[in-house]
Amino acid sequence: MRNLKLTLAYDGTEFVGWQRQAAGVSIQGLLEDALEPFEGTPVTVHGAGRTDAGVHALAQVASVRMQATVDAATLARALNAVLPAAVRILAVDEAADDFHARFSATGKTYEYRIVNAPFVSPFLHRYVWHVPPRLDVGAMRTAAEPLIGRHDFSAFQGSGSEVHSAERTIDAIAWEPDSTPDRPLVFRITGDGFLRHMVRNIAGTLVEVGLGRWPAASVGDILASRDRSRAGATAPPRGLFLVAVRYHQGPGVRGKE
Amino acid sequence: MRNLKLTLAYDGTEFVGWQRQAAGVSIQGLLEDALEPFEGTPVTVHGAGRTDAGVHALAQVASVRMQATVDAATLARALNAVLPAAVRILAVDEAADDFHARFSATGKTYEYRIVNAPFVSPFLHRYVWHVPPRLDVGAMRTAAEPLIGRHDFSAFQGSGSEVHSAERTIDAIAWEPDSTPDRPLVFRITGDGFLRHMVRNIAGTLVEVGLGRWPAASVGDILASRDRSRAGATAPPRGLFLVAVRYHQGPGVRGKE
Repeated sequence: MRNLKLTLAYDGTEFVGWQRQAAGVSIQGLLEDALEPFEGTPVTVHGAGRTDAGVHALAQVASVRMQATVDAATLARALNAVLPAAVRILAVDEAADDFHARFSATGKTYEYRIVNAPFVSPFLHRYVWHVPPRLDVGAMRTAAEPLIGRHDFSAFQGSGSEVHSAERTIDAIAWEPDSTPDRPLVFRITGDGFLRHMVRNIAGTLVEVGLGRWPAASVGDILASRDRSRAGATAPPRGLFLVAVRYHQGPGVRGKE
Repeated sequence: MRNLKLTLAYDGTEFVGWQRQAAGVSIQGLLEDALEPFEGTPVTVHGAGRTDAGVHALAQVASVRMQATVDAATLARALNAVLPAAVRILAVDEAADDFHARFSATGKTYEYRIVNAPFVSPFLHRYVWHVPPRLDVGAMRTAAEPLIGRHDFSAFQGSGSEVHSAERTIDAIAWEPDSTPDRPLVFRITGDGFLRHMVRNIAGTLVEVGLGRWPAASVGDILASRDRSRAGATAPPRGLFLVAVRYHQGPGVRGKE
């Protein structure tokens, strides 16, 4: 049995999210349906990050076990020929037998994009959260600092999660702070794993600070409280991008979800 | 009577084009409908370029005569509050009494964008023509040179045009020749005016040269022939952007359509 690693980008606007649902079009469902004719039988595709409805990906990673002998480059072209233009296969690679897109991942990078200007370019509006009042990016930057390191992120976890531990490690946070109607403010966060809605809840909280409603120190306090009711509202999905998934070199190493 | 100059950007994907039509949503119609409540009576909006269905604009210019006394900045914000996100007012300015968005225009710049890569980013597919085989950009650049200057562009004119003369002056052609799935090859053309489908017919012809089907010298021959049947196919509207409209400083000077 072959093990394939798929790298893909998608505009999540029109989809119900990564995961197959009872109703609506999912990225996982599109991939599984596109792969089935090659295998002659249904296949199961595992994604590194189960992005929500409306969330985008620049380089999501998925894995699938198949018998089909079609070569990887041909498969990539064939998938792009049948998938909608909003989903593109960037690469298909042969993977080690123990590779699993989700369990082998040792980290992920997400971006949250905010246009902080009076209006948004018509070419960007699907891909950003529009926050018109001037944001204090310095305060947001200061506020985000306590998030770096290993913490219990319960305060930023969405409801309906089923995880054993809310501990995660944030390795880095970066900002691109100049925003115009054509260029968003970008909040980039890298960690070993993210809880449900964690990036969107952090973004929603940081915007409260940026608008001057909450002091910069409040984010550290909210984190320490582990109390979801204290964090800001969940930022809209359209501003969120899964940017990259990190794997160890060599044999697959099991990491945090 | 006040004369207002509107500068606007739009994603043309979902519209029937600039001009009001019997059926479908037009940019002109959206603007006229959005302005009517301020005037209390229907208004007529004139656009600098009557972009086709699916064609985009980075800075279309329109003019409208109104009695309403609302200040320009307030009007811009109010229009953006009611227009769809695919249409954004960039500026509203008071204009000289003799200013007319179309007749005062002395030039326009268009861009035609082509992704010359095996696939197109899901975030770009609405805004480019996808030409997968490798294009010879050097040959396309050479081929375009005879277009510069004053010529009869009948060979590149779409059917159904009603113009007295097909003579136009092309001032400049520029290229951004590195294309990746995320970055299109850009063909930027500036002139005193453009015939119906002229940029798209030129783009379609240059792509024939880039694909090696026609020699570079053929474009000059086609231009000289004034024969529409000799030029390439009309390139798809999704790759075309109205980038800028040029006006003389000072009192409005009547220019070519």
